Amino acid sequence: MTCAVLSIGTELTRGELVNSNAAWLATELTALGFEVVELDTVDDDRSRIVAALERLASGARVVVCTGGLGPTTDDVTTEAVANALGVRLARDEVSLELIRRRLEKFGRTMTETNAKQADFPEGADILPNPVGTAPGFGVRIGECMAYFMPGVPREMTKMFLDQVTPRIRALASNNLHQSRMRTFGLPESVVGEKLAGIEQDFPGTTIGYRAHFPEIEVKVLARAASHSAAREVCERATAEVRARLGGYVFGDADDSFAGVVGRALRAKGWTLAIAESCTGGLVGHMLTREPGASDFLLLDAVTYANSAKARVLGIDEDTIRWHGAVSSEVAAAMAVGAKRISGADVALALTGVAGPSGGGEQKPVGTVFLALARPDGTTDVKHRVFPGERLQIQTLASYAGLQLLRELCTPRPAERTSEIG
Amino acid sequence: MTCAVLSIGTELTRGELVNSNAAWLATELTALGFEVVELDTVDDDRSRIVAALERLASGARVVVCTGGLGPTTDDVTTEAVANALGVRLARDEVSLELIRRRLEKFGRTMTETNAKQADFPEGADILPNPVGTAPGFGVRIGECMAYFMPGVPREMTKMFLDQVTPRIRALASNNLHQSRMRTFGLPESVVGEKLAGIEQDFPGTTIGYRAHFPEIEVKVLARAASHSAAREVCERATAEVRARLGGYVFGDADDSFAGVVGRALRAKGWTLAIAESCTGGLVGHMLTREPGASDFLLLDAVTYANSAKARVLGIDEDTIRWHGAVSSEVAAAMAVGAKRISGADVALALTGVAGPSGGGEQKPVGTVFLALARPDGTTDVKHRVFPGERLQIQTLASYAGLQLLRELCTPRPAERTSEIG
Repeated sequence: MTCAVLSIGTELTRGELVNSNAAWLATELTALGFEVVELDTVDDDRSRIVAALERLASGARVVVCTGGLGPTTDDVTTEAVANALGVRLARDEVSLELIRRRLEKFGRTMTETNAKQADFPEGADILPNPVGTAPGFGVRIGECMAYFMPGVPREMTKMFLDQVTPRIRALASNNLHQSRMRTFGLPESVVGEKLAGIEQDFPGTTIGYRAHFPEIEVKVLARAASHSAAREVCERATAEVRARLGGYVFGDADDSFAGVVGRALRAKGWTLAIAESCTGGLVGHMLTREPGASDFLLLDAVTYANSAKARVLGIDEDTIRWHGAVSSEVAAAMAVGAKRISGADVALALTGVAGPSGGGEQKPVGTVFLALARPDGTTDVKHRVFPGERLQIQTLASYAGLQLLRELCTPRPAERTSEIG
Repeated sequence: MTCAVLSIGTELTRGELVNSNAAWLATELTALGFEVVELDTVDDDRSRIVAALERLASGARVVVCTGGLGPTTDDVTTEAVANALGVRLARDEVSLELIRRRLEKFGRTMTETNAKQADFPEGADILPNPVGTAPGFGVRIGECMAYFMPGVPREMTKMFLDQVTPRIRALASNNLHQSRMRTFGLPESVVGEKLAGIEQDFPGTTIGYRAHFPEIEVKVLARAASHSAAREVCERATAEVRARLGGYVFGDADDSFAGVVGRALRAKGWTLAIAESCTGGLVGHMLTREPGASDFLLLDAVTYANSAKARVLGIDEDTIRWHGAVSSEVAAAMAVGAKRISGADVALALTGVAGPSGGGEQKPVGTVFLALARPDGTTDVKHRVFPGERLQIQTLASYAGLQLLRELCTPRPAERTSEIG
């Protein structure tokens, strides 16, 4: 069954925003079994929205639209749909009340601008929005079902999964199965080389790659005569992918790298302390954005200045002066200091040059020393030089630090450690 | 002058790739003065490519296309264009020789598959590709100029800048001017209300809004008879926007909130210490992802466990036991402790409940205490309850903390402080 995606917004046609919504929806719709034939994007112009909608609806069984449902004057999607259908807008009292309550919860009063978000084309199937003010809606245009959702990704994804998916699932041809895995430690081209030939060995499968820096997501999509046959070949191909990639696969689509590390620490029953310098709190942020970090994280001492390294972690100022703040010696002392003052079982320390300035011939921008103080009292330091700009270097260093913790909790063969950087 | 972008590729319609090419081209075309009205994407299907091309060419003066010029069988763009024009494919000997040489340079022999990339619709304007094997080309379709480029971003961007831009520049109307501002502290609907009427007061202007949680970006786009007239009305409208939004505007499109706070601290010559709990390092990460944070940031003590609050910041354990870790008293003690141990001029502390668990009736999820220890020795605590899920609460709390620093450095009337949360 064919379907199309329509994205609405001048911020998209002007290129101010990369349209990740369309790619996300295309992935989901493909996984449901639809053949997605077109992803169109138009600006916030009533007549162009109407024209695109009529055109897509005449050729596809389902059209999924995002954007233009906000409260401001440039949000004209709802009016355009009413025009296309030749119906009036009607205010929905239930939606109005939900918007009012949501605004009150945040201490705000509803204005006419907000109330506009409770207007829908007459006869529309309203899709409540539990995480924002703009509800979505569905309408029938000829033989096509069209669904309209807000453009805010967090609101759109929830509305699509919870409300649109159940409404359209029956329209899809259910002969597809997909699996997704997240990997860290190999560049995309090497992941591709390691998986060469799998599509031929498992007919009906397609291997897809998506880079979410610095991770590579691998997808296995299988098509067969029936859904159970598709699932069977997908599972066999996925097992082959996992076997070839080994420890580079750290989890499923919904796992985060830091979340996996957190689970591993929790499983060991170890508490953690961190001492950061060049990464400036990013390791702590990655671990604590996942719920439950308080089970293992005691302290993250971001000792940015040398004086803080000395005062907070008790590092001898002569050590810093003699070896420099970016050195194996200081990294080790940071880890040992963080472990001692926090009483944690394990400590990770990072010190380096994130750039753009501060690099030298001996220690160019990207140089990072990573120290790991283990429960058995030993401390190791690794020296790495990461490529890229400041935030990339900070991100790669943070991943490398988390990888050390992952390897400590779940030792793997040496060949499976990171090859990036 | 209107233009459109057509992206071709099943990897795009299946969502395996986010279409960053289209956003890049839209930005470039807008900057050249074109009004980009549509970004369409179709799969590698001859008839759909032809239909999209004919449709876009009938409505736009320029259509820029990417993808489907590769050597494999699923690359059918060139054939589709020849079909649309009703002409034959002709092999170009110059392009063939360049492809042969390029392959030889990499130690490869040209096959018929490669040679296919030297075929073009008869009469096409060939665009050489110095960084890849697939040349591009331009054709006239009715009143429209259409250009076809490879989908590989590195090859596409070079071909567009070096070869397409000079060919289309004269077609662009250079009568646009745009300004962009970033705001924090007001929800989108309130920003919209404050700016109501500006489009009418300054004819030719359009106000656009874009949410980058928790910021709202405001754009003023002006169209006039000439570029200088557009700039003039844009500047006047922008001044009015800034006057109405006051201190909620924190910078231009390229400024980050943390970067603005860092600049303000640097201007004052103040050093900073932070003590975080519920935000887990996010405040430190936001400040240190900007270059030059070492000018002012001494320490960010992420004292996640109560024991760390006591050991690192020297907070009396009875204070924590008596008032709870999430309390005005502990927030104040964290700020005072961070200031004392680091020797910084200013200290910011945050302690709260980021959720999803840990909330109670007195201190629900979202409760955050923010303490500011000032250079004059005074310390204040603010109590807030932020809405949303874990990462949203952490983000709002971090912004609120940075906002306290911003206000300390550049005092503003009370009415201009944050209204979010």
